[in-house]
Amino acid sequence: MENLVHDYIKNNNFDRPTLIMSLENLETNYNGFKAGMPSCHVHYAVKANPHPEILSKLHSLGSKFDAASAGEIDMCLTAGASPSNISFGNTVKRPQDIKYAYSKGIKLFAVDSIEEVEKVAEHAPGSQVFVRVLVRSTEAEWPLSRKFGCSSSMVPQVMEAARDAGLEVAGLSFHVGSQTRHPHMWLDTLDFVESIWNYSKEQGFDLWLLNAGGGFPSYYGVDITDSVEYCETLNKEIYDRFAGLKYLMIEPGRGMVANLGSIASEVLLVSTKTPGDPVRWLYLNIGRFSGLAETEKEAIKYRFFIPGKDADEKIEYIIAGPTCDSADVLYEEHKVLLSENLKCGDKIIIDNTGAYTTTYSTVAFNGFPPLEVIVI
Amino acid sequence: MENLVHDYIKNNNFDRPTLIMSLENLETNYNGFKAGMPSCHVHYAVKANPHPEILSKLHSLGSKFDAASAGEIDMCLTAGASPSNISFGNTVKRPQDIKYAYSKGIKLFAVDSIEEVEKVAEHAPGSQVFVRVLVRSTEAEWPLSRKFGCSSSMVPQVMEAARDAGLEVAGLSFHVGSQTRHPHMWLDTLDFVESIWNYSKEQGFDLWLLNAGGGFPSYYGVDITDSVEYCETLNKEIYDRFAGLKYLMIEPGRGMVANLGSIASEVLLVSTKTPGDPVRWLYLNIGRFSGLAETEKEAIKYRFFIPGKDADEKIEYIIAGPTCDSADVLYEEHKVLLSENLKCGDKIIIDNTGAYTTTYSTVAFNGFPPLEVIVI
Repeated sequence: MENLVHDYIKNNNFDRPTLIMSLENLETNYNGFKAGMPSCHVHYAVKANPHPEILSKLHSLGSKFDAASAGEIDMCLTAGASPSNISFGNTVKRPQDIKYAYSKGIKLFAVDSIEEVEKVAEHAPGSQVFVRVLVRSTEAEWPLSRKFGCSSSMVPQVMEAARDAGLEVAGLSFHVGSQTRHPHMWLDTLDFVESIWNYSKEQGFDLWLLNAGGGFPSYYGVDITDSVEYCETLNKEIYDRFAGLKYLMIEPGRGMVANLGSIASEVLLVSTKTPGDPVRWLYLNIGRFSGLAETEKEAIKYRFFIPGKDADEKIEYIIAGPTCDSADVLYEEHKVLLSENLKCGDKIIIDNTGAYTTTYSTVAFNGFPPLEVIVI
Repeated sequence: MENLVHDYIKNNNFDRPTLIMSLENLETNYNGFKAGMPSCHVHYAVKANPHPEILSKLHSLGSKFDAASAGEIDMCLTAGASPSNISFGNTVKRPQDIKYAYSKGIKLFAVDSIEEVEKVAEHAPGSQVFVRVLVRSTEAEWPLSRKFGCSSSMVPQVMEAARDAGLEVAGLSFHVGSQTRHPHMWLDTLDFVESIWNYSKEQGFDLWLLNAGGGFPSYYGVDITDSVEYCETLNKEIYDRFAGLKYLMIEPGRGMVANLGSIASEVLLVSTKTPGDPVRWLYLNIGRFSGLAETEKEAIKYRFFIPGKDADEKIEYIIAGPTCDSADVLYEEHKVLLSENLKCGDKIIIDNTGAYTTTYSTVAFNGFPPLEVIVI
């Protein structure tokens, strides 16, 4: 696939930054999860890339879906998904969206607080909920904030509130953090969640669902464990821990779609700030506000390929986007080595950009249009 | 105006986050700049808010414009602006955009590097350029990165390249940093730019244009100098320094439009992460990806008003947005005190949000639509 997409970019011209996707890898990716975790339920994290062709193909492969909003629920239904195969995993839901989801037949919701339990009980009575727990800092490349989940000491109160409100307490969910490169990096988190699982069962909650979330990595130049081996190891570690587990769900986003595509970009300017400075500034026609939002804090370190110039001598570049926003800098600390001969007009391939690029793009910041998408 | 917009929000219901704007303050703001700096040329920074009604009204008031892209140039022309009143101030321009601008009659461009000079000379021959200089760290609330401008030692080379390529070297530009609250905070920067100005004149460049950029503050709860007094002081400090100055231009963005509007938002969830924790988490239906991008690093500290609850006892909240993105947290370090009685469904007014909100919004992140705009 990589060659197919790269070749397409090499052989065509693009008037503006464009994500080129081939869906060839999608089946391989989906089957990789199922091969390593045969009994798991894959709920694709729609937010990673809600392109209709991705959703339709995943549906045809047997995938289920996790939606973050009513908008995403509609996309899944349009793709043919059955409501029973859609979870509403956002712990912060609009009451109207809960009501809407319930009216469509969706019965599985995430909660992490008593107020959210009350909202779900009111607008989706009798539904199943899993409680998201806040996990300790992990070894993910992009550890999550404290935004989602409640502390372990809060879990009993949330479960009791759910039970008292007539909801079915199905289980727990957590997120190990984005881009967790190897399965052993999950172990501390699994131990921690296991202790909450066991405690909850002791308290009389007959848990049967574990949502292990996402965190499955894509390759950005630093070693990752191969998908099947990754999932096999993780699967064993999970089943060794969670007694009574009947529904293991995972929510891959990046791990499912990042490698479907690359962005065709272009050099706008190469400059030096001070005479004699060996470091050059490289300005692209795409930046943090037109699709590369995940370069915030230089978290995701995309790889760049320059057709015809990858064999050149390399020098160090600071990379920035095209807007008049001074925060629109992609990499300044992270050292990026590229051809010493870069100049305005050169084509640049930004690899593995199928996840978290299209919908993150701003509507028109600085008058630039959003990221274009072509499926080949 | 504030009351007009706040009253509108109080008296209406909104299905999604909506920026309500009244243009009543626009004339006052524009006239404030002109009152304090009578001979200056106001080039409104279109990127701050390119709403057609803002551009048309500013045009009718006599304002000029600074554009960041071909898209913004078109917006200015549509609003009736003459090409001679539009500067193309992005130092990173697409060659096609330079050509387009030139074809429309635009003759004033920013440059900060030799390659950009070459691009302007090729696609907009004979045009006027000003050289953007990189200024030292300032006292701005949001100091700029090193992205724009060249160091003082690079300025002579850039000017020589421009002269040799047949361009007219008109002057210098700089940016003191976003949200510079008082005029005295400009003085070190003005001294520094003055030294470059004088050195350049000694080298035979007959500079006559100074683009003092933006940085004019809006009120976010911390004391700022009143606009007219601010501009009067700044005007005097500038004219005391820059000999031969014939065209003083400023590029207000935030200072021109922030106070035109407020966002109507809503509480989605109030929760506690741990039993007994006095700090609550407040989740809104708007976040960093649907208009409040300037809360990155908690840089801009918006003020919140809760109709009917502002007289309540106050407690501390951490504030976050509605998406499943863990980076979508608005304020965690910055202490925000709000009514202890907040709950899902409460209306929240986010004040002074007329600048850098609408176009920063993502197209559909997590399936949420972009920020809605209503002009009353």
